[in-house]
Amino acid sequence: IIGMMAMTLSSVAADHLPSWNEGATKRAIIEFVENVTEEGSPGFVPPSERIAVFDNDGTLWSEAPLPFQAAFAFDEVKRRVPTEPALAADPMVKAMLDGDIGKLLEGKHHDGLMRILALTHAGMTTDEFDRRVNQWAESASHPRFKRPYLELTYQPMQELLDYLRSHQFECFIVSGGGADFMRVWSERVYEIPPQNVVGSTAQVRYEMRDGKPVLIKTLDQLFVDDKEGKPVGIHQFIGRRPIACFGNSDGDQAMLEYTTIGNPHPSFGLIVHHTDAEREYAYDEKPPASGKLTTALEAAAARGWTVVDMKRDWNQIWSNPDAASN
Amino acid sequence: IIGMMAMTLSSVAADHLPSWNEGATKRAIIEFVENVTEEGSPGFVPPSERIAVFDNDGTLWSEAPLPFQAAFAFDEVKRRVPTEPALAADPMVKAMLDGDIGKLLEGKHHDGLMRILALTHAGMTTDEFDRRVNQWAESASHPRFKRPYLELTYQPMQELLDYLRSHQFECFIVSGGGADFMRVWSERVYEIPPQNVVGSTAQVRYEMRDGKPVLIKTLDQLFVDDKEGKPVGIHQFIGRRPIACFGNSDGDQAMLEYTTIGNPHPSFGLIVHHTDAEREYAYDEKPPASGKLTTALEAAAARGWTVVDMKRDWNQIWSNPDAASN
Ligand SMILES: [Ca+2]
Ligand SMILES: [Ca+2]
Repeated sequence: IIGMMAMTLSSVAADHLPSWNEGATKRAIIEFVENVTEEGSPGFVPPSERIAVFDNDGTLWSEAPLPFQAAFAFDEVKRRVPTEPALAADPMVKAMLDGDIGKLLEGKHHDGLMRILALTHAGMTTDEFDRRVNQWAESASHPRFKRPYLELTYQPMQELLDYLRSHQFECFIVSGGGADFMRVWSERVYEIPPQNVVGSTAQVRYEMRDGKPVLIKTLDQLFVDDKEGKPVGIHQFIGRRPIACFGNSDGDQAMLEYTTIGNPHPSFGLIVHHTDAEREYAYDEKPPASGKLTTALEAAAARGWTVVDMKRDWNQIWSNPDAASN
Repeated sequence: IIGMMAMTLSSVAADHLPSWNEGATKRAIIEFVENVTEEGSPGFVPPSERIAVFDNDGTLWSEAPLPFQAAFAFDEVKRRVPTEPALAADPMVKAMLDGDIGKLLEGKHHDGLMRILALTHAGMTTDEFDRRVNQWAESASHPRFKRPYLELTYQPMQELLDYLRSHQFECFIVSGGGADFMRVWSERVYEIPPQNVVGSTAQVRYEMRDGKPVLIKTLDQLFVDDKEGKPVGIHQFIGRRPIACFGNSDGDQAMLEYTTIGNPHPSFGLIVHHTDAEREYAYDEKPPASGKLTTALEAAAARGWTVVDMKRDWNQIWSNPDAASN
């Protein structure tokens, strides 16, 4: 009977990942999930401990030619410039409009880019910010793929989220992107509710306006959820060590280590390697914008992390249209 | 058929709150829950939006004569003093051992108390901290009630948590207490997993020790989840506005306002008023230690918040022993 159950579970699992080609990568995922979820398995992990964390940019959706949140920020500036002379006069806005990205990245803290982010991510209420993100998501489209940004998620990763959830994993986003930005659409796009989104955050300010509470976005106590910040954010926002971690760049190396080294439970690490210039992009040490992958790729073999070869392992790149619009 | 379903739901609801006496308070809770959860009800709220937030100290468990986390900190200092001469020589530790609480509270930021917290809540790994909290929880007991602290939760509130969860609410703790402290036992005691605990936090530091990742507790970027910090923390950690909020002091007033004023969904606010000196404690403007309740109590009528009269509304105070030990 146990043999039959295992067979049945394997068949169900296979059905859950139709856009993953058969091979070592897909097999590694299924073997891990079956090992930690089948009653009586030596690696069984109780459901409450089945925490899975996913990087977003370059792991769940594309990050090229520019991270989509930066595209939002730039589009916001362009939208507002015609009616806001003070904004148009800002030297960093001018640099941005001239396409002088180098100037935006000057200085230790990329002062120009921080200025663009401050102008578009602070000073308004959270409701107003949500409205702007939604309007942008409805109107903007990707320069190469000519689809709305929210439809440029990866179908294999959508299937992986569903597969894990059907095995009682709780899935979290752990991204360097802004939590407020992602939470506007994460539930619609990934079925990941706002409370399961860990990202870069800053404190809001609580105020009563016309007798009603509002939250004003600021850049105070900025927390950057990247590199060593990822395990820090996982501890602060989730408070439990993951057993599965999915990323695509050196920015995910610390959370891959935190998930897989010395974990009392069986654990799983996976890196999405962008190898498909035709259907998406091909990069590692020289990414179009973000997503540099060198040290984490080197560490993968020694750490036992599974590396997805996008071109070889995925028979479909983009999510089915209904996945992003339901 | 709809009428029958409503009746059935009402009966089930009544069974869920056996330690609440019949009356206006219990009726208000059930009417709210039925209004937002019954299909076809004018106030129906989809399950994903059913966020409920609970203060902890004085709302889910007792906070007298001292908040239990302060009892932990003091007990930790006492445990370590015999073997740590440097600790014993600390002036604030001396004040604490002499019972000079006034000295600990001197200064704008209660420097002495902060010092005691720093000595007991920072400088060790998160695993070591968890171990200390667990050891304390197993060995310490309340000076008046002679029960382990973890068994001093309120049975009516435990029933309320279960009742809401059985109606597809997601329940969160939103407390001024330390998230790391509460997360050690919140799942065992309340069935609230670590990721649903919002509390005061500071950043940990990620390090590799002997080739293994550890997180070191610090007091850096301390966030105090109290007063206006509560709606701020709700936004930062949950990212969705609650529709139900449960507290017991002026420290909960901002999150009660945020939950109930101008909320597009029907909403519910409740204040636990400690009125039972015989079975627990009676206080509002002059609490034994924490839990001052003046402005929030004054605002309750105008805001439509339900006020629990502990003596009148609860036929049992303490949780059933098995609730805290399973
Ligand atoms: Ca990434
Ligand atoms: Ca309280």
